[in-house]
Amino acid sequence: MNKKKCAIVLLSGGLDSTTTLYYAKYQGYNVHALIFDYGQRHKKEVKCALKIAKSAKCPCQIVTINLPWKGSALLDKKMKVPYNRRIDATDIPPTYVPARNIIFLSFAASYAEAVGAKKIFIGANAVDYSGYPDCRPNFFKAFGKVLEKGLKTGVEGRTISVEMPLIHMTKAQIVRLGLKLKVPHALTWSCYAGLKWMCGQCDSCRLREKGFKAVGINDPLGASGRKK
Amino acid sequence: MNKKKCAIVLLSGGLDSTTTLYYAKYQGYNVHALIFDYGQRHKKEVKCALKIAKSAKCPCQIVTINLPWKGSALLDKKMKVPYNRRIDATDIPPTYVPARNIIFLSFAASYAEAVGAKKIFIGANAVDYSGYPDCRPNFFKAFGKVLEKGLKTGVEGRTISVEMPLIHMTKAQIVRLGLKLKVPHALTWSCYAGLKWMCGQCDSCRLREKGFKAVGINDPLGASGRKK
Repeated sequence: MNKKKCAIVLLSGGLDSTTTLYYAKYQGYNVHALIFDYGQRHKKEVKCALKIAKSAKCPCQIVTINLPWKGSALLDKKMKVPYNRRIDATDIPPTYVPARNIIFLSFAASYAEAVGAKKIFIGANAVDYSGYPDCRPNFFKAFGKVLEKGLKTGVEGRTISVEMPLIHMTKAQIVRLGLKLKVPHALTWSCYAGLKWMCGQCDSCRLREKGFKAVGINDPLGASGRKK
Repeated sequence: MNKKKCAIVLLSGGLDSTTTLYYAKYQGYNVHALIFDYGQRHKKEVKCALKIAKSAKCPCQIVTINLPWKGSALLDKKMKVPYNRRIDATDIPPTYVPARNIIFLSFAASYAEAVGAKKIFIGANAVDYSGYPDCRPNFFKAFGKVLEKGLKTGVEGRTISVEMPLIHMTKAQIVRLGLKLKVPHALTWSCYAGLKWMCGQCDSCRLREKGFKAVGINDPLGASGRKK
């Protein structure tokens, strides 16, 4: 493996992480995809992520984790995923999973250090998003410091960095970047509801729809996707 | 559950984490123990941790994780655990597990937030230790910032804090504190080697032995423990 250009990409199988994976490849990185099966109700995204990694010819690792304490509508089927809510970054919805990106990035850091990767890419976005605190720039800045102080590579002066290329983009800009990079939008999955089709009403579906609409193209998982 | 006094304790089953658990109980916390089965060669410590949680009458969660990339002599049986090495905090040994405490603390943060705990206790020690960077005060300071920025409770001004009561203690002081708190030393396990008895030669055995020797008492897992 060319260690200089190796990077870990957190791949959920959604629009943002898939675009990030293609972006990292476009930047010349030898990409390793890291996929999490964490008990999410929309487990379909794991299958989609695997197909995407295969289509992008990336080696990948699936990590299965269990959060028995749940604490999120994405993990606990007794809680409801909110539909058609007013999306407002100051109001953190019940789909928030306690410490999700802290956990995901900590595994990515372990993977990166073990294989000699210098970068971890994450498709976090703090513009068209659900207000999750672990998607905001301040959080990533703090996490970068953890990698500097807590990893062997960090204390030896070879810090692994976290890259968030989409952090300040609108959903429309992400769709456009995807078109440019030939992202297989049809393979992605963005819905929280855990159905066989896109519900069209959860935050994730609506933010995605907003992006495709603004660009003026059909989402391959849009109106037709809902009937899949 | 009394949310005001609830705390998560990371419990490996070793001398330090067990003493920390008893310390948190002594401080009046309603303690939840968090135990990790992470593919460590000294898996015996998981059974010991369970017995300790039971003896301390603490509810506990076991989280099983897989680090398929390994990168540590504690995970990869092809690598050797160093015996009788010169223990020097500037030389990180091959028993270092990439991002171990970052991963453990990230699960603890998720657990803490889900159950309303305000504190996470970890038995890290930066005096008589193997030089792991994720046991040093600077790392914990950086991780505290991550909890402030990345958790819902953090951005709402109710930050969950990480407590390291043993961080500046010698092993002898930890043994003495354990005696005062009636820590069941005989139930703990500190050896890395993955044998049925304590090897007496790995860093963990030697640091433990140093502590008991300095206090002038017999370790119940010492000379006799080795024959178990």
